Amino acid sequence: MKSCSVCGKRAVYFQRHSNRHLCRKHFIYDFEKRVKYAVKKYGMIQKNDRIAIALSGGKDSTALTFVLKKLYGKRRDLEFFAITVDEGIAGYRPPTVEIAKKVTEMLEIPHYIISFKEEFGMDLDEMVKIGNKKPCSYCGVFRKYLLNRTARELNATKLATGHNLDDETQTILLNFMQGDIERLARLIPQRVQENLVVRIKPFREIYEKEVMLYCILNGIEVDMNECPYSRFPVRAVIRDFLYEFENRYPGRKFSVMRSFEALQDCFKANFPQKDLNRCEICGEPTPKQICQACVLRKELGIL
Amino acid sequence: MKSCSVCGKRAVYFQRHSNRHLCRKHFIYDFEKRVKYAVKKYGMIQKNDRIAIALSGGKDSTALTFVLKKLYGKRRDLEFFAITVDEGIAGYRPPTVEIAKKVTEMLEIPHYIISFKEEFGMDLDEMVKIGNKKPCSYCGVFRKYLLNRTARELNATKLATGHNLDDETQTILLNFMQGDIERLARLIPQRVQENLVVRIKPFREIYEKEVMLYCILNGIEVDMNECPYSRFPVRAVIRDFLYEFENRYPGRKFSVMRSFEALQDCFKANFPQKDLNRCEICGEPTPKQICQACVLRKELGIL
Repeated sequence: MKSCSVCGKRAVYFQRHSNRHLCRKHFIYDFEKRVKYAVKKYGMIQKNDRIAIALSGGKDSTALTFVLKKLYGKRRDLEFFAITVDEGIAGYRPPTVEIAKKVTEMLEIPHYIISFKEEFGMDLDEMVKIGNKKPCSYCGVFRKYLLNRTARELNATKLATGHNLDDETQTILLNFMQGDIERLARLIPQRVQENLVVRIKPFREIYEKEVMLYCILNGIEVDMNECPYSRFPVRAVIRDFLYEFENRYPGRKFSVMRSFEALQDCFKANFPQKDLNRCEICGEPTPKQICQACVLRKELGIL
Repeated sequence: MKSCSVCGKRAVYFQRHSNRHLCRKHFIYDFEKRVKYAVKKYGMIQKNDRIAIALSGGKDSTALTFVLKKLYGKRRDLEFFAITVDEGIAGYRPPTVEIAKKVTEMLEIPHYIISFKEEFGMDLDEMVKIGNKKPCSYCGVFRKYLLNRTARELNATKLATGHNLDDETQTILLNFMQGDIERLARLIPQRVQENLVVRIKPFREIYEKEVMLYCILNGIEVDMNECPYSRFPVRAVIRDFLYEFENRYPGRKFSVMRSFEALQDCFKANFPQKDLNRCEICGEPTPKQICQACVLRKELGIL
């Protein structure tokens, strides 16, 4: 039995990148300290912010809701509420929507549930049946669309998502390996754009497995099911490589993040983000004339 | 039996990234076209250049010597000569020095052989025995030192090395994964520095396996032995990942190269390369006061 490197009590976790064993108390302390550090470093939360949390009910967003409430819930100038998008994926989404309801009730956070079915007249399962695109093409576009629109309509100044260090480094490396520096440069918004709620990622410096452990140690209900549509072959190759690399050389996911950050000034100077237009059909922000959500709705015959 | 996508004759190679089968003639044609394209694109060879080729006698540098002579040997304004550094690695280096002698004789290119033993009074095998550093730490520093000094003393305007696409993308990804953007930015010299002969890499857009095939198809002698000191655990992990990624998604090594190129302007603006000093001891160019070769010579007691 290993003992905590901080206090000597029974350790529950070995943090390889810092070479420390941590007990329950000091793991949670370290986890929350790093969330606060990231929030501060990137200026994610500012005075009088009204923060919408994108809460799917999966482990990342549930842990995020829990920790934001715990760390910042007492600040009088801040407001939090959660938005859950029910895409309509039979067998997969309903249990996480239930978790989302329970956790927001417990934490006393206002909770808004919106669904593809109600908003677009069709759920994801139906779209997949009649459309010729991959499920993630519909899901990603419509989910982001609804999250942004709903957050904005509810006067949110920020939209917090549960993306963790593993997610972010996968995306960074994936874009780098595919020669897509423009997309890489877009990963962090360079400035505030009209009608687009600023997205923040308080877990971007936290390993996925640490999010999982944080859930377990806090008794946060975790749904371990994977989306039945989940198929990212390229991303999976990148994920496995990063996993192996991190395993051999602990801390390297942080190095990837540091590389990405070192390039931020470069991105601003050489890959400036375009001003967004308002979609000619729905008025939502888009880099084109018509937003991708309206393009897909047209294709699906629901516009 | 597959036939050449260009002429229909018997194919000897399937070029996955272009999805083409190529016969001997069209493989060689394509290979040389791409070398010429890279040379032109990066302005590697200019009028009146006097080009030193770093010729170890391994497959890459031997193929390089062969192809440079073939493609540019008739140009009256250009001069070529080869420099071979004999580090003194028993059993490994002598056969390749012999290959280097043979190929330069055959191609009628002036050939200069210099050795650690003669220049420093000690060969690599001895350094490794008495020093406390890894073999590559001595070899890399002293080899580059001698190549640059010799090339400059022989009035070279360029120093050509056999680094191929695999080598380059490994180095790019390695630096990126280790968070070392400064080193990444130094991979391509931003400007000419006094006393430092400009290095060029005509094979930077050519796969290693294509260099090998080019050797075989041209009857170029290839020594398949690996350096007995060769141990790059991190690089090997990166190499294997790149191999697998390229294997699944042909052409991705080019994508990595494109990412790197897209960042060149960023590097110049945000990671400007420092002016080099002259080493206080030997006068060779160095970013510090005393060059690394002199530091190592002191440590080894041969200064």
